[in-house]
Amino acid sequence: MNENSIEIVFEPFGKKGQFKRGITILDAARSLGVEITSICGGLGVCGKCKVRVIAQPGDINIITSTEKKLLTKEEIENGYRLACLTRVFSNIKVYVPERSRITHQRLQVEGLEITVKTDPMIKKVYLELSPPRLESVSADDLMLKYALRSLGFSEADFDYEVIKDLPELLRQSRWKVSVVLWNGNIISVEQGNTVERCFGFACDVGSTKLAGYLVDLNTGKTVAVTSRINPQIQYGDDIISRISYVTEKGFSGLKDLQRSVISAINNMIDEVCNKLSIHPEEIYELSFVGNTAMQLFLLGIYPKYLAYSPYQPPRKSALIVKSRELGIKANKCARCFIMPVIGGFVGGDQVAVIISTQIHKSEEIIMEMDIGTNTEIALGNKDKLMSVSCASGPAFEGMHIKYGMRASDGAIESISIDPATFDVKFKVIGNVAPVGLCGSALIDALAEMLRAGIIDWSGAFNKELSKFTKRLRKRNNQWEFVIAWKDESGINEDIVITQNDIREIQKAKAAIRTGAEILMRKMGVKEDNISSLLIAGAFGNYINPESARTIGMYPELPIEKYKFVGNAAGTGARLVLISKDMRKEAEDVSQKVEYLELAAEHDFQKVYVDSLYLPFRDLSRYPITVEHLKKFNYIIRQ
Amino acid sequence: MNENSIEIVFEPFGKKGQFKRGITILDAARSLGVEITSICGGLGVCGKCKVRVIAQPGDINIITSTEKKLLTKEEIENGYRLACLTRVFSNIKVYVPERSRITHQRLQVEGLEITVKTDPMIKKVYLELSPPRLESVSADDLMLKYALRSLGFSEADFDYEVIKDLPELLRQSRWKVSVVLWNGNIISVEQGNTVERCFGFACDVGSTKLAGYLVDLNTGKTVAVTSRINPQIQYGDDIISRISYVTEKGFSGLKDLQRSVISAINNMIDEVCNKLSIHPEEIYELSFVGNTAMQLFLLGIYPKYLAYSPYQPPRKSALIVKSRELGIKANKCARCFIMPVIGGFVGGDQVAVIISTQIHKSEEIIMEMDIGTNTEIALGNKDKLMSVSCASGPAFEGMHIKYGMRASDGAIESISIDPATFDVKFKVIGNVAPVGLCGSALIDALAEMLRAGIIDWSGAFNKELSKFTKRLRKRNNQWEFVIAWKDESGINEDIVITQNDIREIQKAKAAIRTGAEILMRKMGVKEDNISSLLIAGAFGNYINPESARTIGMYPELPIEKYKFVGNAAGTGARLVLISKDMRKEAEDVSQKVEYLELAAEHDFQKVYVDSLYLPFRDLSRYPITVEHLKKFNYIIRQ
Repeated sequence: MNENSIEIVFEPFGKKGQFKRGITILDAARSLGVEITSICGGLGVCGKCKVRVIAQPGDINIITSTEKKLLTKEEIENGYRLACLTRVFSNIKVYVPERSRITHQRLQVEGLEITVKTDPMIKKVYLELSPPRLESVSADDLMLKYALRSLGFSEADFDYEVIKDLPELLRQSRWKVSVVLWNGNIISVEQGNTVERCFGFACDVGSTKLAGYLVDLNTGKTVAVTSRINPQIQYGDDIISRISYVTEKGFSGLKDLQRSVISAINNMIDEVCNKLSIHPEEIYELSFVGNTAMQLFLLGIYPKYLAYSPYQPPRKSALIVKSRELGIKANKCARCFIMPVIGGFVGGDQVAVIISTQIHKSEEIIMEMDIGTNTEIALGNKDKLMSVSCASGPAFEGMHIKYGMRASDGAIESISIDPATFDVKFKVIGNVAPVGLCGSALIDALAEMLRAGIIDWSGAFNKELSKFTKRLRKRNNQWEFVIAWKDESGINEDIVITQNDIREIQKAKAAIRTGAEILMRKMGVKEDNISSLLIAGAFGNYINPESARTIGMYPELPIEKYKFVGNAAGTGARLVLISKDMRKEAEDVSQKVEYLELAAEHDFQKVYVDSLYLPFRDLSRYPITVEHLKKFNYIIRQ
Repeated sequence: MNENSIEIVFEPFGKKGQFKRGITILDAARSLGVEITSICGGLGVCGKCKVRVIAQPGDINIITSTEKKLLTKEEIENGYRLACLTRVFSNIKVYVPERSRITHQRLQVEGLEITVKTDPMIKKVYLELSPPRLESVSADDLMLKYALRSLGFSEADFDYEVIKDLPELLRQSRWKVSVVLWNGNIISVEQGNTVERCFGFACDVGSTKLAGYLVDLNTGKTVAVTSRINPQIQYGDDIISRISYVTEKGFSGLKDLQRSVISAINNMIDEVCNKLSIHPEEIYELSFVGNTAMQLFLLGIYPKYLAYSPYQPPRKSALIVKSRELGIKANKCARCFIMPVIGGFVGGDQVAVIISTQIHKSEEIIMEMDIGTNTEIALGNKDKLMSVSCASGPAFEGMHIKYGMRASDGAIESISIDPATFDVKFKVIGNVAPVGLCGSALIDALAEMLRAGIIDWSGAFNKELSKFTKRLRKRNNQWEFVIAWKDESGINEDIVITQNDIREIQKAKAAIRTGAEILMRKMGVKEDNISSLLIAGAFGNYINPESARTIGMYPELPIEKYKFVGNAAGTGARLVLISKDMRKEAEDVSQKVEYLELAAEHDFQKVYVDSLYLPFRDLSRYPITVEHLKKFNYIIRQ
């Protein structure tokens, strides 16, 4: 041990190791296999990697302004720091509290499975050629082309990169090769018979979350899935703030966004490839779906005009780009299929949802919502389909919520409150002591508090009730309601929901409700006309539909009409990878679906304000809900 | 003037300038506009940039081993140096002798003009779009696509590079743009109406010479031509020596060859663009024709297996490569069309010659020769066409010939010798005093010397004749014949043709004759069956056909059957640039023409030896010539 190395002990695991002076606690933990949670991936944004450091002054860097913002005064006094922002210069001990530990991630990325014929753009075939002889000299390219022709590939052209290595490869492999074709182009030639190894990668590029799927292109089956936080959140939580970042910083800002998402994508590719002992060179096609701006960032296209009226997107059609042009890890001639979009703020992810739910072919009128940081809603049937985008924000991902977290072990996922006693019951993912609240619990909380009269229709706490329950209280100058007491929780703290948290959820739900409302008005559709409301998105699956209806996040329908369709965007991304027909359908959908620009709607602001109410300002639109609430303590203040 | 700068005076012009110490004389001359001839472009290969230096020891670097090889003992004693290899460290005077001065280059690159409909792959159209409004938002790409559709371009796809800049460009140009399409792909969008400016660049990549043509793709007309020495000659004079260079050096050797030819191509592009005030970005497509190996070097494809039996080429089909992938100066999305080839040593240049002469559609049997460092010969008609390649070497370009030079001002281009008096008459290009002999004069010289009995059918000097003429003499241990006396010449030296020179020409003509002979045998064609012999290649045009027939370079036909078709390879390169039909024809020709591999012919060596004779060992094949020679002093030694 030399003077440049220091020792860090991680408690309560008792794991320790030697590190270079100046390492961050997060990096040290990772190298020891001590898993510390981090939504933002070590960017100093999410504030989730809190650890308690036992150290002398000078052992670690002094507290940063970011940490001052993300830690409470109490936490700072108790020695809490963010692991990603704390550098270590001397031997220290670090205590990792329960809520900062990573547990097994519950993913909802499998989505709904629809049946399509596996007929990808990529075909891989094995050829045994006869070596050329002096009497029958041809050309390396022609020998391959003729052999392919006999297999029915009539017009095969070579990618320049492939033909460069062809002569050597054919001879080294003794004229036994596997050929990969993309839409008739020969994009790879490999030694021997490797037709069994033919992969694609589909990716749903969300504003907050990336979901990646490794697909076996021979079978059409998904063989591995993974997800990441979109590291672009360091440049802004939502689309508009990221566009602002680019317009302020110019092309270097655009490069920042592009580079960060591509590095996360490459990271996911590495992970799924390692998991299955696949080489990224064996990935021959990739598909990317995301909202319009996310796709532009991925492509490095200047998104400026998306932010200015009339908000016209640069592209609507699908785009094919070589992976090497984007710097994406895959076969050097792999193609990236970038989904066509519907409008400036309804992107390829929505096209993906529509083709996987097939609502563009439905006789009945269907509403569909893909809930995320940006929520897209479509409404209509085979005759007319209209779509809109709502900036719902990242609150449901746990961002900007005091005890918010993603849906992983330790997250409270559902809540019920006894309206008589105000007792709280909750369910925790992984059946462990709770460490925070995930999105579905937040919606439950609002619905249950409304039902119990703890909050009123404006979302304000009914402070009177603090006389009857200790759960409703004022702390640090803010009202809050205790969901889990310190002794029940895994973090040695009360888990609460604050007035601010309620406001964040209200804003999110109002954004969604506004989109749905304006869409219904435009289409002349009433609640009665809607045959079902499909809820897409990993998150949507966990929402209790009754709670969502109670707070007015969804238009009011009979409960059986709310249907979950999983991460339909991810499913759509996989469909275009395994089916040429689906790719055609995607192009059709992008042309056919009408795009509604909320910003152009004069009543937008009014509808939004109405939608902030719980469930809605016009209660006549929620008769079932009002009836139900009346059974409890609901205070109608109209 | 500081101590790091020196002065060089160039005589007889009296031009002088200040230069950095260490500059080469060639670079200094160029910067003053003093034009010193250099076939190899300053590579120390051609030995043509001889200058006399008036200097003290130490003023310049000591003589290099290359100069010792390329200069005579006499020249070295008189202070001659090669300008490209001489670095200057102090003030000196340089005398540029007449024969080292550059004069106007006579180019034969216009070639034959055949009539084809101008219908290039590239189309450029002007569009005026209506700016988007909030009520009618579409997408930037769709607006362009729809506008193009109304002009008949039904399926236009965007190049990724183009769509990246599209949003900004459309708005800056106030929605008035010119769009360039390549085969339905949108490869460029430009501000305003620039449809008049639409260019292509065709290039004939010869082993020794590059010919470049700037073509107006609107009219199909060639608007500028240029040529360069192929700088790859520094790595070997001919194909085989360049392939050896690559197989010895590996991929770095391949890079050397690729880089050098591409830099010369870019240089030509700069030149023609400057001449016409065109920006290289306005070149949207390029075509390249060359023999198989030259095309591989250009593409950076490993040519190793061309040198080994069965000599199978890596590619035969046409290839489309983006110019930026090759590093060629043009529009960033410009396409390079690389001509399909016929076989390992009959390349795209021969395909180009065939489509421009249309012999693949001829009823009559036609022989065609494209004479160069590598000479390709085709024989046949619409039913059957066969092609062969002969390594004729660079002798006709003046390489390896004592007073050899290219066909520029000062070159003796034709010679006649009085068989009675041995007096020599000659014609000089540019009507100036002669400084050397170009290829056509060398062929004349052999034919005339044969006719006059100065050489016999084996090419040996008839030394007896030295008794009758002072022109035939022995100098420096070698026999030579004086073409121009010192007092007639512009270089203050006798211009002679040596026994070595004769051997070089014999080898070159024998290589060609061997190819023709074997081709005739294979096709079962006799001289009588051949309706015409088309002579292609810049050089071929200047050859006196009777002289070429006399020395047996051509099969013997009545003189009117020899026809010049100019640089037909260059013409073919331009044809595929301006006509889609011609491109299809080129692909057909490459498939249809049978390739004859001389190396596989068991009688190759015997035919070659027979062909070294003047005109041929079997004199019965040259009855007209023999009859003619008999009128003079021709000594038949059979």
